[in-house]
Amino acid sequence: MAHQEIVLAHGSGGTMSRQLVEEIIVREFANPHLEVLHDGATFSVNGTRLAFSTDSYVINPIFFPGGDIGSLAVHGTVNDLAMCGAKPLYLSVGFILEEGLPQADFRRIVRSMRDAAAAAGVALVTGDTKVVDRGKVDKIFISTSGIGAMREGVEIDPRRARPGDRIIVSGTIADHGIAILSVREGLEFETVIASDSAALNGLVDAIFSATRDVRVLRDPTRGGLASALCEIAGSSGQGIQLEETSIPVREDVQAACEMLGLDPLHVANEGKLVAFVPEADAPAVLEAMRAHPLGRDASIIGEVTAEHPGMVFMQTRVGGSRIVDMLAGEQLPRIC
Amino acid sequence: MAHQEIVLAHGSGGTMSRQLVEEIIVREFANPHLEVLHDGATFSVNGTRLAFSTDSYVINPIFFPGGDIGSLAVHGTVNDLAMCGAKPLYLSVGFILEEGLPQADFRRIVRSMRDAAAAAGVALVTGDTKVVDRGKVDKIFISTSGIGAMREGVEIDPRRARPGDRIIVSGTIADHGIAILSVREGLEFETVIASDSAALNGLVDAIFSATRDVRVLRDPTRGGLASALCEIAGSSGQGIQLEETSIPVREDVQAACEMLGLDPLHVANEGKLVAFVPEADAPAVLEAMRAHPLGRDASIIGEVTAEHPGMVFMQTRVGGSRIVDMLAGEQLPRIC
Repeated sequence: MAHQEIVLAHGSGGTMSRQLVEEIIVREFANPHLEVLHDGATFSVNGTRLAFSTDSYVINPIFFPGGDIGSLAVHGTVNDLAMCGAKPLYLSVGFILEEGLPQADFRRIVRSMRDAAAAAGVALVTGDTKVVDRGKVDKIFISTSGIGAMREGVEIDPRRARPGDRIIVSGTIADHGIAILSVREGLEFETVIASDSAALNGLVDAIFSATRDVRVLRDPTRGGLASALCEIAGSSGQGIQLEETSIPVREDVQAACEMLGLDPLHVANEGKLVAFVPEADAPAVLEAMRAHPLGRDASIIGEVTAEHPGMVFMQTRVGGSRIVDMLAGEQLPRIC
Repeated sequence: MAHQEIVLAHGSGGTMSRQLVEEIIVREFANPHLEVLHDGATFSVNGTRLAFSTDSYVINPIFFPGGDIGSLAVHGTVNDLAMCGAKPLYLSVGFILEEGLPQADFRRIVRSMRDAAAAAGVALVTGDTKVVDRGKVDKIFISTSGIGAMREGVEIDPRRARPGDRIIVSGTIADHGIAILSVREGLEFETVIASDSAALNGLVDAIFSATRDVRVLRDPTRGGLASALCEIAGSSGQGIQLEETSIPVREDVQAACEMLGLDPLHVANEGKLVAFVPEADAPAVLEAMRAHPLGRDASIIGEVTAEHPGMVFMQTRVGGSRIVDMLAGEQLPRIC
C-alpha cells in the first residue's frame, strides 16, 4: 500500500476505504461473511436467519440541522440492517465520552437515540460507556450494532444485479453532506439545508410489499451515490448506466455543491437508498416507494447493462456521457 | 447529579459509572432488557434465544504484556456473552483510527483480533472503519459487539443469588490492571506482570458440564472483583461474605498493589470470572474449573448470606471483618 500511515481518505467511503478494508481487514480476517463487503453479515443461529451490522459515528458537529450524533447512530445501523433485507429489531450502543462533555449534551443525545429507536420500532437493549481524558477523543463517539430478522426467501446481494434491472433512488441526494458542511464551515444559504437522516426500514417494508424479488439495496452514505453504485458494479461484474436528469437533487443543494466544487454524486446521504429491481417490478416498486413519506421523490435513475462491466456511466444533462468514479481521496472528513 | 460535566470516574466501572448509567441511560431508554444492568441482553428472535453484548475499548497503551487492544476487544465481548450463559458465535468490529496511525500497528491489531477470535471459536463477520483527524482520537479505539446462542434451560441473573450459594473465582485477581499500570507508568518489577486477558467461554463450558444450575456469572473487569460483587449484592438484595485468605493474588501483583496503594479487589481483570452456584454443586464446579487451563487457581472465596443484605463483608487476613465497597472515583483511567 502506498501510504504507510492511516490517512483521512481511509475513512472516506471511497477507493482508499475499500483498499484498506480489502488489503488489511478482509485479508486478515478472511471469512465468507466478510467477503461480501456488504453493510452487514447474515447467518443462521439454530435455524433463525439473522442480520448483524455495526457502525461507529464520529460526526462533527455532534448537533446539526435535522439530527445529532445520537439519532444518526440509530438511523445508520437500522439502515444497514434494512439494506440486508432484514427487519431491524435490537440495537446495542457503545459511548466513548470525553472528560468535560456537558452532561446536558449527553442527556440530549441519549434522548434523541431513544426517540429515533422508538420511531424506527427497534429496542436499545444493551450498552457500554467509556470515558477518556480530555483531548483524547473529540466530545463523543458512538458505536451502534444491530440485529435484525431476515425475511423469508429474500436474498439481497450486490452480486445479484442483472442486465435490465432498474435502479431506483428513494429521493434527493447529497442533503446530509451539505447540511453538515454548512454548519461546519459556517456557510449561509437562503434556506437551512437539513440532513436527511432517517430510518429506512419502513420504506424497505413498502418495497417488499411490491415485490419479493429485490436484487440489491444500498444506502449511499460516505462516498455518496457514486461510490455505492461503483461498488455494486464492481461486485456484480455488470455495468451501470445512469441518466443525470433523473437523479433528484434539491435546488439549494445543487447550488451549494456548485459553489463548493462538489459533485452531489459523491456527497453523503443518511436517509436515502438505492434499490435494484427487475424491470417488470420497477413500476410497482416505484409506486410503493412514492406512497411512503421517505420515498415521495423516488425516481428510476438508470439500469444495469451488460456493456462496460464493472463501470458506471452517466448520460449527462447536456447530452454527453461520462464515467462515474468512486470518491477518491477524502471529501468531507467525519461526515458520519 | 453533582457533576455537571462528564468526569473520568463516570467510566471507572464503580459507583459513578453506575450512577451515570442509571440516571441517564437506563432512565431515558427505559426498557426491561436494560434494567437488568447485566453484561449483555438476552431475547428471542423467531423462537431462538440469543445474547447480545457490546463494549468499546480505549485502553492505553494499545500494546501491553499479555495482549493488545485487538485481543482485548475480542476477549471482552466474548466474555460478556459467556457471562450471560450464552455460547458466543459472531462478532462485529468498529475501528476508529487516528490519522497518522502506522499501518503496521493496525495490521498487527487486526491479526491479533483474528487469532483471538479463532482461539475463542467465534467469527468476526462484519465491521466498520472510521478515520478521525490527528489529535481527535488517541491512536485507535475499537468497539466489538457479539451474538451468542443461549443454552437451553439456563438462567443467569444477578437477582438469582441465594443465601448459601458458594462464590468461586476462577484465578488470581488484579493481573490486568497491574500489567497496564506497570507499562504506563514505567514501573519495573522483578518479573514482567502480564495481563490475564483471555476468552472465558471454554471455562464457562466446563462450569456448565458440572451443573446447569449456575445462578450468576460475572467477569470482574473495570472496578475489579469488589465492584462486581457489590453490584450482585445490590441487585439480588442478598449479603455477601468473603474470606480474604481464599482470594488468589499473585505475590508480585500483591507487592505492586501495596507499593501503589491499590486494593487488588478494585483492580481490573480481563480473564477471570466469578460464579455463584448452589452449595451442593460447588465442589463439582470447582473441580471442573481447576481442570481447565484458565481455572487452575480457582477458589471458593465466600458465600451469599441472608445477613447484611445488599452489602459485601470480608473476613480479613488478620482476623477482622471489613466492608468491601464499590470502587469510588477513578483508579486507572483507560484500563480497557
